[in-house]
Amino acid sequence: MSSIWGKCIKISVFGESHGTAIGVVIDGLPPGIQLDKEEIQKEMDRRKPGLDTYSTPRKEGDMVDIVSGFFNGHTTGTPLCGIIRNIDKRSKDYDELKDIMRPGHADFAGRLRYNGYNDYRGGGHFSGRLTAPIVFAGAIATQYLRQQGITIGTHLLQVGRIEDTRVDLVNIQKEQLTNFRNMRFPVIDPKAAENMKMEIDNARMDQNSVGGMLETAIINLPAGLGSPMFESVESRLSAFVFSIPGVKGIDFGTGFGFASMCGSEGNDGFKALPLEGAPPNPMPNSTKTKDLESCPLLHTNHSGGINGGITNGMPVVFRTVFRPTPSIGRPQQALDMKTMKAKKYCIHGRHDPCIALRAVPVLDAAAALVVLDLVMKAKGHSRE
Amino acid sequence: MSSIWGKCIKISVFGESHGTAIGVVIDGLPPGIQLDKEEIQKEMDRRKPGLDTYSTPRKEGDMVDIVSGFFNGHTTGTPLCGIIRNIDKRSKDYDELKDIMRPGHADFAGRLRYNGYNDYRGGGHFSGRLTAPIVFAGAIATQYLRQQGITIGTHLLQVGRIEDTRVDLVNIQKEQLTNFRNMRFPVIDPKAAENMKMEIDNARMDQNSVGGMLETAIINLPAGLGSPMFESVESRLSAFVFSIPGVKGIDFGTGFGFASMCGSEGNDGFKALPLEGAPPNPMPNSTKTKDLESCPLLHTNHSGGINGGITNGMPVVFRTVFRPTPSIGRPQQALDMKTMKAKKYCIHGRHDPCIALRAVPVLDAAAALVVLDLVMKAKGHSRE
Amino acid sequence: MSSIWGKCIKISVFGESHGTAIGVVIDGLPPGIQLDKEEIQKEMDRRKPGLDTYSTPRKEGDMVDIVSGFFNGHTTGTPLCGIIRNIDKRSKDYDELKDIMRPGHADFAGRLRYNGYNDYRGGGHFSGRLTAPIVFAGAIATQYLRQQGITIGTHLLQVGRIEDTRVDLVNIQKEQLTNFRNMRFPVIDPKAAENMKMEIDNARMDQNSVGGMLETAIINLPAGLGSPMFESVESRLSAFVFSIPGVKGIDFGTGFGFASMCGSEGNDGFKALPLEGAPPNPMPNSTKTKDLESCPLLHTNHSGGINGGITNGMPVVFRTVFRPTPSIGRPQQALDMKTMKAKKYCIHGRHDPCIALRAVPVLDAAAALVVLDLVMKAKGHSRE
Amino acid sequence: MSSIWGKCIKISVFGESHGTAIGVVIDGLPPGIQLDKEEIQKEMDRRKPGLDTYSTPRKEGDMVDIVSGFFNGHTTGTPLCGIIRNIDKRSKDYDELKDIMRPGHADFAGRLRYNGYNDYRGGGHFSGRLTAPIVFAGAIATQYLRQQGITIGTHLLQVGRIEDTRVDLVNIQKEQLTNFRNMRFPVIDPKAAENMKMEIDNARMDQNSVGGMLETAIINLPAGLGSPMFESVESRLSAFVFSIPGVKGIDFGTGFGFASMCGSEGNDGFKALPLEGAPPNPMPNSTKTKDLESCPLLHTNHSGGINGGITNGMPVVFRTVFRPTPSIGRPQQALDMKTMKAKKYCIHGRHDPCIALRAVPVLDAAAALVVLDLVMKAKGHSRE
Repeated sequence: MSSIWGKCIKISVFGESHGTAIGVVIDGLPPGIQLDKEEIQKEMDRRKPGLDTYSTPRKEGDMVDIVSGFFNGHTTGTPLCGIIRNIDKRSKDYDELKDIMRPGHADFAGRLRYNGYNDYRGGGHFSGRLTAPIVFAGAIATQYLRQQGITIGTHLLQVGRIEDTRVDLVNIQKEQLTNFRNMRFPVIDPKAAENMKMEIDNARMDQNSVGGMLETAIINLPAGLGSPMFESVESRLSAFVFSIPGVKGIDFGTGFGFASMCGSEGNDGFKALPLEGAPPNPMPNSTKTKDLESCPLLHTNHSGGINGGITNGMPVVFRTVFRPTPSIGRPQQALDMKTMKAKKYCIHGRHDPCIALRAVPVLDAAAALVVLDLVMKAKGHSRE
Repeated sequence: MSSIWGKCIKISVFGESHGTAIGVVIDGLPPGIQLDKEEIQKEMDRRKPGLDTYSTPRKEGDMVDIVSGFFNGHTTGTPLCGIIRNIDKRSKDYDELKDIMRPGHADFAGRLRYNGYNDYRGGGHFSGRLTAPIVFAGAIATQYLRQQGITIGTHLLQVGRIEDTRVDLVNIQKEQLTNFRNMRFPVIDPKAAENMKMEIDNARMDQNSVGGMLETAIINLPAGLGSPMFESVESRLSAFVFSIPGVKGIDFGTGFGFASMCGSEGNDGFKALPLEGAPPNPMPNSTKTKDLESCPLLHTNHSGGINGGITNGMPVVFRTVFRPTPSIGRPQQALDMKTMKAKKYCIHGRHDPCIALRAVPVLDAAAALVVLDLVMKAKGHSRE
Repeated sequence: MSSIWGKCIKISVFGESHGTAIGVVIDGLPPGIQLDKEEIQKEMDRRKPGLDTYSTPRKEGDMVDIVSGFFNGHTTGTPLCGIIRNIDKRSKDYDELKDIMRPGHADFAGRLRYNGYNDYRGGGHFSGRLTAPIVFAGAIATQYLRQQGITIGTHLLQVGRIEDTRVDLVNIQKEQLTNFRNMRFPVIDPKAAENMKMEIDNARMDQNSVGGMLETAIINLPAGLGSPMFESVESRLSAFVFSIPGVKGIDFGTGFGFASMCGSEGNDGFKALPLEGAPPNPMPNSTKTKDLESCPLLHTNHSGGINGGITNGMPVVFRTVFRPTPSIGRPQQALDMKTMKAKKYCIHGRHDPCIALRAVPVLDAAAALVVLDLVMKAKGHSRE
Repeated sequence: MSSIWGKCIKISVFGESHGTAIGVVIDGLPPGIQLDKEEIQKEMDRRKPGLDTYSTPRKEGDMVDIVSGFFNGHTTGTPLCGIIRNIDKRSKDYDELKDIMRPGHADFAGRLRYNGYNDYRGGGHFSGRLTAPIVFAGAIATQYLRQQGITIGTHLLQVGRIEDTRVDLVNIQKEQLTNFRNMRFPVIDPKAAENMKMEIDNARMDQNSVGGMLETAIINLPAGLGSPMFESVESRLSAFVFSIPGVKGIDFGTGFGFASMCGSEGNDGFKALPLEGAPPNPMPNSTKTKDLESCPLLHTNHSGGINGGITNGMPVVFRTVFRPTPSIGRPQQALDMKTMKAKKYCIHGRHDPCIALRAVPVLDAAAALVVLDLVMKAKGHSRE
């Protein structure tokens, strides 16, 4: 369904930007995950608006209230529901929007989809605010995956015309990914951060916004996850990622670079397996050892860790592109549903000049949820 | 599940490259679709190998035998199963591959996934041959969609270093898309075709292969299809498209170009609605009229026809990138599972130097199946 | 997933008996259903405990807070979340139960399923209290179905040794079903009510409990809903009904009575169709007319309104059996997980002597949700 | 979808009674199951018609051709498709049925469901013949479950007025279940078999048919399978069982007998656990030992091995009721769609006087598929 996702675990996201509350039910979580609530809140804070001038000054105060599925410090295995109250909503800002369809927004498509009954205030269920429950669910998945030795991290690869360095597809260190999670502007090249900030500042001062690109890496994934065809790891990841408002493209490994490549270049050649003579194993512990991290199986990783839809033990790396925030102060060509005519319109209210920046923890969460689902499919629910 | 896809209609694909047969069960088709079997076969032939020197000389003879769900010239509404016998298989070519993991292929990942029990001959269930049943299912969907006025077409946007012109995102004519389906080298710029052929010829003579990019357009889609979040049209299309062997990236509308754009540029401004005063309607017939085709709702179409995951009545346009065929004659660094050591290996057998070319009808089929599913979700099964 | 149900609409139920809150997310509701909140609360009250001596004296105060998916008096079509706070919980009553597995309860099976991490207080997620969110979701479905002319009602067919009259399988009047909803002891034969009350009183005074049977009828269902095989109406209804704690059997129409019947008796013979010459139609309006109610299509209705898994336009009627409440005051043979030995144990706390009685509105809700899902599958989401 | 079932494994059934072929795709099977094809055929033969006078004299010759997913004697883990050609069809017998809706059959409901496009010959996709692919899929599941020590068996509990003894809910021996599979008339009381045969003979000679009831038992199931609410073991089993044509009721353990029971009687008291001090375990090997079979955990088994939707380690036992075959030679009140009037009609052709008898292996198959799905959910696909 529209706002329910998953196979072995399922999440059901609810809420509107200006309603009473938003939240998520997570069904099928493994029982016995010890949850560090502070760490969950830290993830929520990474997405939270209003931290500095690079994002919207609204204060959403994303405190999550866990009302079920959590007992004596651990997940119970039954549905876990987290609720976030909407407190700093200024619905008045949106009153005039009832019949004004903003360009680049879901207003028009949504109105047709829901026969005009959808909550239009602040985008309603289409709002980027709905990524908060996803970050919450992802934070729980992340704590489980850490016990399995799996690490995920995302950096800003591009903001407007400014590009960061790509990660090393073959050799990604855990420290790098952990650092990304602790940086306000997660980039590899510190200079890029400065220029990106300037790019965003300029857009804001110009009553405009700017697009961007993120790069996400997942390391220490066991080989053998996923399936051919419709449950390919790429299918699972892309389906989730395109649920995040503003995403318009995704590619894996060398991705769009493959178009102009030849096979002799793009095929990743094998090294020897680190443990010679080891029997092939769908979830070899060896892929989780420190040794393997510094001794990858393949010379290159154009495939981005996935062949035939299945993980091959190399880092899974993908890029996601975000459109510039559609909400800008400049006059734009909107549609007035009362007159059915185009109308010049300036969007007021407070908005992020670059949604890609705030989407960093959302990508981490999306990746964690997909990986958790794949791991549970392989391992079942009866083992921790 | 791995090889089952869909919500309102479902397809279940089976078979291995060198097994007895491959095929597909299509469940949930609307009853009463009048099927033109010749036209279905024509679609199969577009994908069929061995037509000329640009693709593999194997003769797969993709004749589909419909064994159920078809009665008196129409679909019955109960499961329709199409079976394709494997006739020109030379399994001997693959005998030595049992323990040789080829670079760029799913051999290694698949062996771990299936504990070594998967059929390794010709890639088994991972083979590109499994796209034949998808083309068959898509051909049926296409015949249904045509009655709804919806047209789909795909052209080669890039082969190696050669690029074709992009479609006009705002104004795509039905004739153009229909033409793509009748061309052996579907391109907009005839010169590009010549150069692409040369690029492929060079790769083949060089015992190499070359990557490529496709662009697919869907026109006359009613506005209001799809849903926010996990059933976004982008999520549905990308999940299917990444099931096609060799796809490593997808983007919609302006896609990756959004990264360096600003909002004032990327937001698609509204024109007046063609029928003034018309009540908003989730499936307005007006969007199917000739008038609307030449009188689109928006000035630009950077969004690729989708906002908030929902169609907005403009053409849906997306690009798909294909890696170069991993099977090449040159010596490569394979893995020998018996010794667990890397081993120089040359792939024999007959292979396409550019899978992107043969993937054109597969993309058309994928798009048709996704759109049919979205239309059925909106309209239900009780009306034709 | 365990607590997520549905195809076209989905409900995701969360909460534990003694946690902070319980609730439900309903995804995929048609937009624009005008909700009468008082009527919803009335349904909640039918299930609410503590109304009289025939049910548990706990006061659960089942006030539902709708936090999303509801705007300007109508459903929006985006996920609707209803939350019920747990207020009158006495968790102390359950402290000693941590390691005591009660007979007839899910304690032991649940402990193994969740590795001992589940919330054991009051049965946790296994509690009958989790039917409150189902009643809420069903009340919304019921308001939608009423607009379609579909009516549902349930009566107590048996309590202990006392039996009520069965409904007339062929001729069920709307008034009868509406009356069931307004009765505290919904029965056809008033005498049965008196005897049932006595049966329950006796059980309670005896520190015991008693089983029961319900009969549910759905009238004015359009013919042609459901599908053969795995989406048979019986499959859909039974799968939901067996999710209700305490249900151990279900049958349709003549049900178990068929075992000793012969075909000439059990086949329902046709009358003439009321509108002669009318073309067959998957959702004939004629089946909704008053005329048809008094002029059913078949002479008898042993099939309970379903043939080949599909509605035939006759009333759908099914019976559900409930085990006696496992919680009784008498000493029972429990299991002590600390010693792994059996142990005499008396259950304290407040419990219903007959859960079948309180399950009446739950059955109405279950039926309403299944029927809504079937209707949406047939009609799609784009029409009201 | 209508003819697709499953969570971890999925089966997709296709075909019509008088079409070219029927069959099934099984997706998600564990790789490496060694298949004994003779044993599979033996299961097919149990269901096959024409063995003696108690069933229809048609010869369906149910030879299954496995065309995928099977390699070197083992399942590959990729979709396994089995196809059964329809050879002894006499479609002429059904020509006059095009517009005649037979009582007790799905003709009328199906015609409305599929707008008149469904294949009406021999019931088309509604035919009992479609249980053949289910028996095939179940036979594969059975071979996997045997390795896990799980045994399933079904006997005729009732045919017309003749009843067999019930199984001992607490103490069911493996031998008894295995014997059921080798008997043409699987009953416990040999006298019952004789009387049942007479009952069927009488019905046939009388141009009539007779109903029946089956009882199915599953032993050595690990405790902890299933989930509360919508994935209760009862929900999963009943949803599948109601897909079998002719089933109109199901109950578990004491089932409908619970209605007149009190709690002190119906709660199953605990014995000591056989291995004292053993830690609770979701899939304890101890439940698979011979010891446990003769030393069950509970004194009684009214719950039929399931509490709160989850297995408790006791035998799972359920009863299924079948209506009498609707096809009988006697004149009946059919509906003529051309005149929209009722019409006396005698069904010709060859039919089983008691479908319950031939349904025995179908119930075994249904149970095996559901159990396999539950086991895979608990254990994942990465282990055998």
